[in-house]
Amino acid sequence: MRALANPKTAIIGAGISGLTSAKMLKDYGVPHTVFETSDRIGGNWAFGNPNGRSSAYRSLHIDTSKHRLAFKDFPISEDFPDFPHHSQVKSYLDDYAAAFGLLDAIEFNNGVVHAARDGDGWAITDQAGDTRRFDLLVVGNGHHWDPRLPDFPGEFTGASIHSHHYIDPNTPLPLTGKRILVVGIGNSAADITVELSSRALENTVTLSTRSSAWIVPKYLGGQPGDKLFRTTPYLPLSWQRRAAQWFAPLVGADPTTYGLPPANHKLFEAHPTQSVELPLRLGSGDVIPKPNVTRLDGDVVHFDDGSSDVFDVIIYATGYNITFPFFAPEFLSAPDNQIRLYKRMFAPGIDNLVFVGFAQAIPTLFPFVECQSRLLAAYAVGRYALPPAAEMERIIDADQRLHVGHCTDRPRHTQQVDYFYYEHDLRTRELPAGARRAGVG
Amino acid sequence: MRALANPKTAIIGAGISGLTSAKMLKDYGVPHTVFETSDRIGGNWAFGNPNGRSSAYRSLHIDTSKHRLAFKDFPISEDFPDFPHHSQVKSYLDDYAAAFGLLDAIEFNNGVVHAARDGDGWAITDQAGDTRRFDLLVVGNGHHWDPRLPDFPGEFTGASIHSHHYIDPNTPLPLTGKRILVVGIGNSAADITVELSSRALENTVTLSTRSSAWIVPKYLGGQPGDKLFRTTPYLPLSWQRRAAQWFAPLVGADPTTYGLPPANHKLFEAHPTQSVELPLRLGSGDVIPKPNVTRLDGDVVHFDDGSSDVFDVIIYATGYNITFPFFAPEFLSAPDNQIRLYKRMFAPGIDNLVFVGFAQAIPTLFPFVECQSRLLAAYAVGRYALPPAAEMERIIDADQRLHVGHCTDRPRHTQQVDYFYYEHDLRTRELPAGARRAGVG
Repeated sequence: MRALANPKTAIIGAGISGLTSAKMLKDYGVPHTVFETSDRIGGNWAFGNPNGRSSAYRSLHIDTSKHRLAFKDFPISEDFPDFPHHSQVKSYLDDYAAAFGLLDAIEFNNGVVHAARDGDGWAITDQAGDTRRFDLLVVGNGHHWDPRLPDFPGEFTGASIHSHHYIDPNTPLPLTGKRILVVGIGNSAADITVELSSRALENTVTLSTRSSAWIVPKYLGGQPGDKLFRTTPYLPLSWQRRAAQWFAPLVGADPTTYGLPPANHKLFEAHPTQSVELPLRLGSGDVIPKPNVTRLDGDVVHFDDGSSDVFDVIIYATGYNITFPFFAPEFLSAPDNQIRLYKRMFAPGIDNLVFVGFAQAIPTLFPFVECQSRLLAAYAVGRYALPPAAEMERIIDADQRLHVGHCTDRPRHTQQVDYFYYEHDLRTRELPAGARRAGVG
Repeated sequence: MRALANPKTAIIGAGISGLTSAKMLKDYGVPHTVFETSDRIGGNWAFGNPNGRSSAYRSLHIDTSKHRLAFKDFPISEDFPDFPHHSQVKSYLDDYAAAFGLLDAIEFNNGVVHAARDGDGWAITDQAGDTRRFDLLVVGNGHHWDPRLPDFPGEFTGASIHSHHYIDPNTPLPLTGKRILVVGIGNSAADITVELSSRALENTVTLSTRSSAWIVPKYLGGQPGDKLFRTTPYLPLSWQRRAAQWFAPLVGADPTTYGLPPANHKLFEAHPTQSVELPLRLGSGDVIPKPNVTRLDGDVVHFDDGSSDVFDVIIYATGYNITFPFFAPEFLSAPDNQIRLYKRMFAPGIDNLVFVGFAQAIPTLFPFVECQSRLLAAYAVGRYALPPAAEMERIIDADQRLHVGHCTDRPRHTQQVDYFYYEHDLRTRELPAGARRAGVG
């Protein structure tokens, strides 16, 4: 791999990771093919994506303001609202793809079925049944499409769906006049709970969470909150988190304020749940807060506090598995969403494989994947070289301690990354160091 | 009237004003009859009230926290959420009526059709067609039931309803997939705009306001905002308003932040609109802000900024008229909601007539009407006497300057009263002064 100046590159997926990767490789003149199972770009942000990989519900707005969302290379329209709707995010990605001429390199309706190492390259088998050889493989298939379900004892006889399949109060289930349990406390759980608990729908909605979460508003003082709060790479992350934690009472972030269980982590140690509406709905009695589920029994659900209730429907907003269906499991998988990647991009020992987008970046994935794609492109043209595998292993541990170490080891936390720290590290330390290693620095 | 120790009293309405009046009169042993057009108590808070006088929509929660809402005489259940649903407010009123045995004095389905002065008393004609004589008349028929509509030039050919008739997105009109214009900026306008702009309903929703309003959240730092902000009667109201105005930027209260027109008054000079959701919906592009309507033309509505748009439905959340259908108009009416009342209770020169509940009390009417009912009862048993009419006229002007003077003269502002000031004035000044005037102080 290190010998290749312009490796023939396969990119899996035309979501934000695949698109930014393709854009950077194109900028650097690296030949590449994007394999996409769908007939369109956008991945998760293509609402109703026929490839089944979008988790977007009809009312979804991104929880990051446009000010933080924009790629560095492509400004977001001034006309966009502070928090764009999924349809606007999709149109932004369409404009991005058009502006940089990315569509020509994409093979639509032709995802990668199997990817296997083949000598110092890859044998890539696509949906059409063809197998082609590539030098470098970029995995950008995302990690918000394979629903993860909790393993509660017992059996529930009502209807159950994962939030991945939730579209609106009529789709895929008629959710009016129902007794609904939402399990989870992420942004999807909050949004769906708020939507279904509107008294106009005449549901009764209960929200159960095990880990709980800090709840922060999207607006602070009339400004998108994420414009005001950001970390700096020049101060220890732990100090900054502690400072932000002082502000928690000011914004009413503690979930116990609203009857939810206490968070099993400190504020900003995990992605906070952004909702101004959930506290209001809890405080208005429209949502009944519950701790973790202990047992399912017919139409009855038992909770940690000894209480139980009868439900018609359970919606599991319990997150996603990291899954690579194109790899043989014995080659590479991410059990419990654990995957050891150097700078969250390189599996030590496999130097012709690059992962893009496998993080829970705070505040958002968009500029994060763009930042990763810069390192990918430098790597592909030989202007960045990896350190020895042992050194990579050591740094993986150190980075994990920095970004995740103080956190619990729940699946949703394993990929936690602070974008501002990460971007600064890649730009000011890792890229120059990799250039020196490559003999071009 | 002054000669009567226990005047036979008629009360019009069994809403919060009639109920608190009846309770106090009962406490003081004053014989009374409550005339109620409906088959139930609660007035505005009896959702779907068959008398047509409730403006409650299905999802309505009171915008005052239970901590400020409770009558002094009757605590609210600790189990209630911070912001009770209308059904819980109704059940609170049911419990209040039951606890104090108020139902026996109420004639249900028998409202007052006509009330005329008859010597030194009243001739009260009821729905049943009977006319009875009373010594004292208490008017508690409320001022949130007679829809006020703006007088825009031109004609709109789509559907129009007043918020009074809005129940939910299916009732009385099917409001999905529609182009909807909401006119107004009060709490009803905000709630209805938020409800209909849910992307799940696939409407496009535009909000037009002439006067605009400051927007304050229901929660501040996890606490109901009205627990934190209250006035004290020991400092000038103008100073306190100015202090509160300094906080406006902290809570993002300025409507221009979200694209709405600037408010035509300063914060707390008029009832602020309480909504955490409206700013979010505006900032998410789900609600399009517009200034005042200038002209209707078929299905097109023209706005003050020169723009225009096509609509299927207009919802007028433009407030209510103060109407006394049982009085001959030449006897007493409230053109443009202007009615000169001493302590917002007594029309100078008519000393056997008491109004209860005719104010826009900040933060809420509940303890306000209870406070008025104490003065009513003291008056009815001769422990409170009115000053001379000329003195009453002078004080009406002074009170109006205190509570409203700095405000615009729009109909929604005419009745503005600061409850904490008002209650303190009645308890510490007006009741003792009235007792002295009655010779019992």
